Amino acid sequence: MKVLILGGAGMVGRNLAARLLADGELGGRPVEALTLFDVVPAELRGTERTKVHVTAGDISDAATVQALVADRPEVIFHLAAIVSGEAEADFDKGYRINLDGTRHLFEAIRALNDYHPRVVYTSSIAVFGAPFPEAIGDEFLNAPMTSYGTQKMIGELLLNDYSRRGIFDGVGIRLPTIVVRPGKPNKAASGFFSGIIREPLAGVEAVLPVDDDVRHWVASPAAATGFLLHAATMDTSTLGARRNLTMPGLSVTVGEMIEALGEVAGPEAVSLIRREPDATIRGIVAGWPRNFEPARARELGFTADASFQDIIRAHIRDTAAAG
Amino acid sequence: MKVLILGGAGMVGRNLAARLLADGELGGRPVEALTLFDVVPAELRGTERTKVHVTAGDISDAATVQALVADRPEVIFHLAAIVSGEAEADFDKGYRINLDGTRHLFEAIRALNDYHPRVVYTSSIAVFGAPFPEAIGDEFLNAPMTSYGTQKMIGELLLNDYSRRGIFDGVGIRLPTIVVRPGKPNKAASGFFSGIIREPLAGVEAVLPVDDDVRHWVASPAAATGFLLHAATMDTSTLGARRNLTMPGLSVTVGEMIEALGEVAGPEAVSLIRREPDATIRGIVAGWPRNFEPARARELGFTADASFQDIIRAHIRDTAAAG
Repeated sequence: MKVLILGGAGMVGRNLAARLLADGELGGRPVEALTLFDVVPAELRGTERTKVHVTAGDISDAATVQALVADRPEVIFHLAAIVSGEAEADFDKGYRINLDGTRHLFEAIRALNDYHPRVVYTSSIAVFGAPFPEAIGDEFLNAPMTSYGTQKMIGELLLNDYSRRGIFDGVGIRLPTIVVRPGKPNKAASGFFSGIIREPLAGVEAVLPVDDDVRHWVASPAAATGFLLHAATMDTSTLGARRNLTMPGLSVTVGEMIEALGEVAGPEAVSLIRREPDATIRGIVAGWPRNFEPARARELGFTADASFQDIIRAHIRDTAAAG
Repeated sequence: MKVLILGGAGMVGRNLAARLLADGELGGRPVEALTLFDVVPAELRGTERTKVHVTAGDISDAATVQALVADRPEVIFHLAAIVSGEAEADFDKGYRINLDGTRHLFEAIRALNDYHPRVVYTSSIAVFGAPFPEAIGDEFLNAPMTSYGTQKMIGELLLNDYSRRGIFDGVGIRLPTIVVRPGKPNKAASGFFSGIIREPLAGVEAVLPVDDDVRHWVASPAAATGFLLHAATMDTSTLGARRNLTMPGLSVTVGEMIEALGEVAGPEAVSLIRREPDATIRGIVAGWPRNFEPARARELGFTADASFQDIIRAHIRDTAAAG
């Protein structure tokens, strides 16, 4: 089978691609061809089983997207997006990539006869906006408070309508914040959730800009890959008319994260966390959802991490494996 | 002040325009100019106080919409839409008018400097999809089950984001089904809700395709006009981050509607209702929301009809006044 990943050079896309190459199959069928598309070329080599095709471009160009689906991949992962901060800073770019780009993809599929691929779309918990209940259930309204969340929600609605129409077979998954993100610190407002684990484990000081009682909804990179693979292979007839699902995660406070770090890596690691309250980041984080009750996704077989300690241990293993 | 109505030739738009001309003012300010735009020219003459400008065109053409807002109306009512049945039958047309057209309007406003009009957008209870709770509250999820509902919901999301950004000052109102619609029967699946009142009052037989216990959410034409005027003049600072509101209405069963008809117009009127069950219409209606608890809209001063008897009496008065 042929698999296409839009956003194949990002963190989630790279992990997914690596897993597909390692498995060599998806849902019991060999993956013969894997195309990775992104704004920059992904760095990945094929295997004997799976040919990798790397391509770069801009999904706001309809012809680019038409060319990507022309060879009719059976499964398409649409992970490509302008992230929250940039979509807020650049109104036009956010709508161009996150809304128009998504429509170009869906329309390119629709333009082909007898072609109904599985489309897995990564949405976000940013489709929800405060005030929240204690835990956000599957029937809570979608009231995004950012342009990114607005664009992701529009993508969900389109995915649902195109699927209902039988144009493709879509599954939208709202990912928790991914912790621990590997690599260097980034400037995302949520970056510290990974930083306070990743930096101390590497013997480097980390800054914590919020209070210890701040609660957040997280999943490991491996759990995110698991969600994507399950969405690509699940029986969608059980989804009914609602094809967008909040993924399970762990609801943990910063204090609990730090406690878990101490258990796994000892007090020296914890001592590398420097508390430096930042009113701006505090304010942003206060508007984020912190806890969910994602009953449908759990019933449909999506599985979260067992504990935050496990998330830390997995990061230690991944870092060691990456050399 | 200048007022623009997109969809000015439709039933809701005509009623609104007539009321604005009769009042001659909006929110205490004289309405000097009223522009009515639609796919067909509206038929309405100005008054001494208010100049009426009638224009026709297609909102899926960006330049047409730019020209409409070029003279910077202080209040814009965006009622223009392809209705549910047609948006379902013609996928491209529905998205072109209901999504692209709405974006063209919002972008045309954004393109002008120092211009932040009040925008009143008519959404629909079609943004909700079954299964429903007993009464749909203000925090119930938006899971439309038609392309029309999808497009209306996307409009709501855009309205909210553009308003949050300060581009304009938007209020989205989800109208109940309007009963009693004046004029001839139409082919909408919801048409019988008006037909079983309007036809008997005119001494004509009406067909009832569903059971008497079918419950629906309705408002009179005059209530709808009231919602629009209130949305145009209310203090939007109280709306917070959620600018789309389910309008109040009456939740009545078909049996209750018929009973009210008997009370107001006597048993002869009721005897003109012929029961002719239609499985298709029954099926469509079964997927519609039937009851709401629109607490926010009520708190914000939107007022529904007092009773279904009042709705019938208002229709009788309006019909007499129309000659």
